[in-house]
Amino acid sequence: MHTLPQLLDKIQDFSQKNPFPDTPAELYDPCNYILTLGGKRLRPALLLMGYELFKNDVEKALPAAWAVELFHNFSLMHDDIMDAAPLRRGQPTVHTRWNTTTGILSGDVMLIYAYQFLSSVENKAIIARLLSTFNRVAREVCEGQQMDINFETRDNVKIPEYLNMISLKTAVLLGGALEMGAICAGANESDLNHLSEFGRLAGVAFQIQDDKLDTYGDSAKFGKQVGGDILQNKKTLLVLKTLEVASEKDCQELQQWMATGAENPVEKVEAVKAIFDRNNIPELIEKEKQRFQSEAYKHLDVVSVAETRKEVLRETVEEFLKRDK
Amino acid sequence: MHTLPQLLDKIQDFSQKNPFPDTPAELYDPCNYILTLGGKRLRPALLLMGYELFKNDVEKALPAAWAVELFHNFSLMHDDIMDAAPLRRGQPTVHTRWNTTTGILSGDVMLIYAYQFLSSVENKAIIARLLSTFNRVAREVCEGQQMDINFETRDNVKIPEYLNMISLKTAVLLGGALEMGAICAGANESDLNHLSEFGRLAGVAFQIQDDKLDTYGDSAKFGKQVGGDILQNKKTLLVLKTLEVASEKDCQELQQWMATGAENPVEKVEAVKAIFDRNNIPELIEKEKQRFQSEAYKHLDVVSVAETRKEVLRETVEEFLKRDK
Repeated sequence: MHTLPQLLDKIQDFSQKNPFPDTPAELYDPCNYILTLGGKRLRPALLLMGYELFKNDVEKALPAAWAVELFHNFSLMHDDIMDAAPLRRGQPTVHTRWNTTTGILSGDVMLIYAYQFLSSVENKAIIARLLSTFNRVAREVCEGQQMDINFETRDNVKIPEYLNMISLKTAVLLGGALEMGAICAGANESDLNHLSEFGRLAGVAFQIQDDKLDTYGDSAKFGKQVGGDILQNKKTLLVLKTLEVASEKDCQELQQWMATGAENPVEKVEAVKAIFDRNNIPELIEKEKQRFQSEAYKHLDVVSVAETRKEVLRETVEEFLKRDK
Repeated sequence: MHTLPQLLDKIQDFSQKNPFPDTPAELYDPCNYILTLGGKRLRPALLLMGYELFKNDVEKALPAAWAVELFHNFSLMHDDIMDAAPLRRGQPTVHTRWNTTTGILSGDVMLIYAYQFLSSVENKAIIARLLSTFNRVAREVCEGQQMDINFETRDNVKIPEYLNMISLKTAVLLGGALEMGAICAGANESDLNHLSEFGRLAGVAFQIQDDKLDTYGDSAKFGKQVGGDILQNKKTLLVLKTLEVASEKDCQELQQWMATGAENPVEKVEAVKAIFDRNNIPELIEKEKQRFQSEAYKHLDVVSVAETRKEVLRETVEEFLKRDK
């Protein structure tokens, strides 16, 4: 068993030993660029932890772990184009530093490399099972992204729909990473399902946290523009919860702000935040997060390995759910 | 053994029995749309022909055949965005009918479905081998597209570089389709290599033909704007060959036209065509095509099955290389 920093070292080492080709530089430089923007490598780490629940020779799972990280970065690169996001972790996004064409094509090749690493696992007998999970997750991530886009132009998004969207767009990949690690280790289908659900439900909790941090986080630590969701009139859980619990007057005020542009961004963010605050939205959101978190742990509890083997995974997820940046 | 129309029926039947999901419609409608624009289904047909060289139960290869068609359409959808192409087979491209976001995301999900169909072949023992070829081809297609983009801003593109670019961007997929069909049928590595090279070299010949037809084809049959390459100042083989063989005066005139916009498109196309004509470029291009074609057939000749089994494949490729639309 390894600690999180030890696993991160192994991932870093694997990525350095398995670089992209040098040419065409215009295709591969942006892939290297997005990977050096300082992501947390949470997904490949989860995959390795999923493996270490069952087996010790974690190096065997590194190609699948790196595949998941590449998939994640492919989706970031394409989402940033679709969301017209100027910054990613405080640095210019790929389509901003280069252009849209580069963002599309370098993203495509990263997705293909993800499949290539996945196919390079030593034990060829598990490839079909690995692909079955990876393909499902990849498809669901696209469907979640499409739902997110659809919500932008809808006025009647309900909280359960929203939770389903974030489950698909971001959470299934965390569950999928754990499941794929366990597949590499030869775990049974029941354990695979529980790990997948643990990761997915914890992932929904993470995303609820992210929604909160976009408005209530520390910009320097978070590496994003604070209030970015408000300025983009995003229907985050903060907004949907307000529309569920607030007075008609507050709902109308929020909707008015959301119907306006961002001519005066500071004023807009402060005004919307004030509506959230006086309706206790941060606390209500925290409760919602806790609900998913405790549901998640029920699944981890029943995974059929000794509790000591679950410690690193449990601590990592707990730590991550407590973060305020 | 089946004729081309019989194989096309099987592909059509398979696609109808394996539709995309209904929702989110915004994600999957564009996938259905591009597939109904009337492509020739040449790649999946080649895959099935690759299978039928060795075995008779061609239905086994249908998931892999459909995977190749989905991959092809994914690459068309993304290339059309990068090339800012308004039309595809005479109809609006996906990003024109919808928008860039749709073109990106629906393309992504088509690529994922390609992998999903590939993973669904019945004989799980061949999946790793299939993926090895598919991943290589997919990566090379991206690299070829990148080279094509790079050429736009370069003044010193040489003919061998250009031929390498079209080999990667379009021809390797034809070779890959034949190879994957043969993998499904359990062919040996030597036959796989020869089929891959046959398809690739024939694919380069196809592409040379396409370059010629873009300027010399019949607009109504071809479904594209005639002279589109000229108006976009594309460095096609017609241009590169002219720069190789023409007088300095003609080279300069061509370069002047390529440095101008398309304010008067009819005049520009006619003027550039006249330069090609007086330098016998169509004939020289035809010779180049013949060279690749005859190299291609040498590889088909040595594939270790009876000549009668090669007939359908040979006739299909010959027919396709003779087309004037």
